[in-house]
Amino acid sequence: MASEQQGERLRASYWVETPLKAEDAAAILAGEQSTGTFVAVPGETEDLKIRHAARVERVEELETVAEPSLPGSRPAGGPYRRARVEVSWPIENFGYNLPAILSTVQGNLFEIAQFSGLRLLDIDFPASFAERFPGPRRGVAGTRELTGAHKGPLIGTIIKPSVGLKPEATAAMVGQLAEAGIDFVKDDELMANPPHAPFNERVDAVMRVINDHADRTGKRVMFAFNVTDEHDAMLRHYDKVVESGGTCAMVSLHSVGLTGAKRLAEQGDLAVHGHRNGWGMLTRHPVIGADYVPYIKLWRLAGVDQLHVNGVANKFWEPDDSVVRSIEACHAPLLGQQNAALPVVSSGQWGGQAFETYRRTGTLDLLYQAGGGVMAHPGGPAAGVRALRQAWDAAAAGLSLAEAAEANQEFRQSVERFGDAETKKQVFGEPSS
Amino acid sequence: MASEQQGERLRASYWVETPLKAEDAAAILAGEQSTGTFVAVPGETEDLKIRHAARVERVEELETVAEPSLPGSRPAGGPYRRARVEVSWPIENFGYNLPAILSTVQGNLFEIAQFSGLRLLDIDFPASFAERFPGPRRGVAGTRELTGAHKGPLIGTIIKPSVGLKPEATAAMVGQLAEAGIDFVKDDELMANPPHAPFNERVDAVMRVINDHADRTGKRVMFAFNVTDEHDAMLRHYDKVVESGGTCAMVSLHSVGLTGAKRLAEQGDLAVHGHRNGWGMLTRHPVIGADYVPYIKLWRLAGVDQLHVNGVANKFWEPDDSVVRSIEACHAPLLGQQNAALPVVSSGQWGGQAFETYRRTGTLDLLYQAGGGVMAHPGGPAAGVRALRQAWDAAAAGLSLAEAAEANQEFRQSVERFGDAETKKQVFGEPSS
Repeated sequence: MASEQQGERLRASYWVETPLKAEDAAAILAGEQSTGTFVAVPGETEDLKIRHAARVERVEELETVAEPSLPGSRPAGGPYRRARVEVSWPIENFGYNLPAILSTVQGNLFEIAQFSGLRLLDIDFPASFAERFPGPRRGVAGTRELTGAHKGPLIGTIIKPSVGLKPEATAAMVGQLAEAGIDFVKDDELMANPPHAPFNERVDAVMRVINDHADRTGKRVMFAFNVTDEHDAMLRHYDKVVESGGTCAMVSLHSVGLTGAKRLAEQGDLAVHGHRNGWGMLTRHPVIGADYVPYIKLWRLAGVDQLHVNGVANKFWEPDDSVVRSIEACHAPLLGQQNAALPVVSSGQWGGQAFETYRRTGTLDLLYQAGGGVMAHPGGPAAGVRALRQAWDAAAAGLSLAEAAEANQEFRQSVERFGDAETKKQVFGEPSS
Repeated sequence: MASEQQGERLRASYWVETPLKAEDAAAILAGEQSTGTFVAVPGETEDLKIRHAARVERVEELETVAEPSLPGSRPAGGPYRRARVEVSWPIENFGYNLPAILSTVQGNLFEIAQFSGLRLLDIDFPASFAERFPGPRRGVAGTRELTGAHKGPLIGTIIKPSVGLKPEATAAMVGQLAEAGIDFVKDDELMANPPHAPFNERVDAVMRVINDHADRTGKRVMFAFNVTDEHDAMLRHYDKVVESGGTCAMVSLHSVGLTGAKRLAEQGDLAVHGHRNGWGMLTRHPVIGADYVPYIKLWRLAGVDQLHVNGVANKFWEPDDSVVRSIEACHAPLLGQQNAALPVVSSGQWGGQAFETYRRTGTLDLLYQAGGGVMAHPGGPAAGVRALRQAWDAAAAGLSLAEAAEANQEFRQSVERFGDAETKKQVFGEPSS
């Protein structure tokens, strides 16, 4: 390790709840995740501790509560103190090994009885990581280049039903969507390489349609084929997409881990679409798990180009504030990476959310993915795609949703079809009866 | 897919909490994870539903609660109903693709607003999986063979401090442990391939000692080298261990996922030691995440030979009942697999827990891992190892802890050094002052 990197430290911040004093709990965290042992052992010298011990950088006490939030906490009896804690590690402890870093910042921490609540809030990587982790090869800029979609959000949709369609039926749907002017289509995470729609046959059928459309129009629709599978099969799937003229591979991040995601990104030919299914297990309960921001950083370091972030006013559980933070974290400068990750906005999106999404984030660098909003538009998919572009153009021009609906027939139809009662009232006034 | 496999279904069971009727919530779960769409689409035909829809097999209603356990649940307002639910899928939906199965049984389920609590309890795989997933190549029997430890639990320990020791210091400790008669030693999960103890140098130093000891005594200590790293580096590490005469590779399961774990197990030369660091995030809160039993099945199908299960009366949060279920699930018949996985019992173990562990599980087919219990024994590591074997021999012979302490000097010293007040009172009577 070059001398200029010596002394560099990785930092992680946590929300904790503990029956101990907050600083004592923080010290346990630091000890367990570096040189500490429960019983002193001969090798645990002062010199070793100086070089390798994790350090508590900051403890900010918050409120106390009477009951522990997690079972199995010890010692028994409150009050349980909540705090924000920041800990740092010398990079000599793990080097440039992302999985080892994950074991360090999370590891067995959630098992520790002295925590009655624990949540990973953020990770800060030292400057020298920039050389080893160039980040997404495609990201926002590369995805725009591959699709020829240079202005506004990329408009995308997902093949539904999630499973059951045979390759030819999938391809027929892709043909319809390509004609409709879509930029991006994806497999559902449930659709991988099943007997009724084998991966290679699906690629052949879909890419015939996409290549034909590209030849005729110059527009190459990006299809995210779900390559998730056993390791070698996954690489074969990836190669099949490359050979067939495809531009994107989707992977279920939590099935392949940091190791698999980075391996796939290093192939370098396709944009890697990172699907976060399973993430809800790690994030939904506020007293355990992790925020998405540190995970976005890890996936970006691994080179993932496109990251699911849910959407404003989504059909899932997640609050808008959390979605906005995720979109920002995909774009935020990270170790001088040339490419931001492309946030994939989805879940119950139909265009109406464009206004609030733009107001909160101020960006058009995203993939806006609507299922029903495209396929179930009263005017058909082409009208659905137009409605989504109308919504974003209007939002970017500073118009309100009502003004956009007034000016654009297709978007007005979307409001009629998909808007909730309050939105319809804004646009159409009180219902007549 | 051969005709005899048609009609096979995979089953998963869940604990759920919902503001809806339990059967309606179960139907949403089944729909979201198979053919359901929020807005009807043209391809969602009756025929497709018959072939691919998930089916609710069973709903067992439990208690109701007034407040939702998870944030973001909708519709608002209680009561919130708890239930056990079993759902099945035709295997045509995913084939023999473990990651796709994970996306199917977990996927976006934890994001769904109609659940205010959700926990995966178990998975049952159809019979035809037996052919494709032979399970652990080494497991209990293979690990015994590789170590020559044919009777009683394998006795193991872990190198501490977790990080900071240079290869020669690590090797010196291994030498001491080998002389002490240990069967197994492992890297900490924090120790992978850091600048101060590069993987190859650590293997060279440690295997010199182990090979030398094997040449002199015929006993080959198993060292679990933590190969966790980027994918190609991980395979290089694995090969390095093989070339050097090693017998075991340890991997952080949650960093490499099912894909990486299976790829590693398929190499076939070494026992794969599966470390579950990070698992606490997924399991500690009872209203979200998963039990370990379905994960043990997944890791066994992926071929992992040795699985961490925590220990009875551990220093972590986990209750004994959960530990006992995990030990049993490592051994339970699974699709006719020839080898059970070897349960790795650890966390605060010093021998005293042998009695309750044996009483609850009735098995000696486990790896019993003690840190301080070996290294900090008053008589030194050799006495520490002897004490652990004495404890297990006594437990298997039906002796009590007090009888074992009476009959065995080293174990009596362990009780003095590591026992809690109650255990000491059992053995030594009331303290004199």
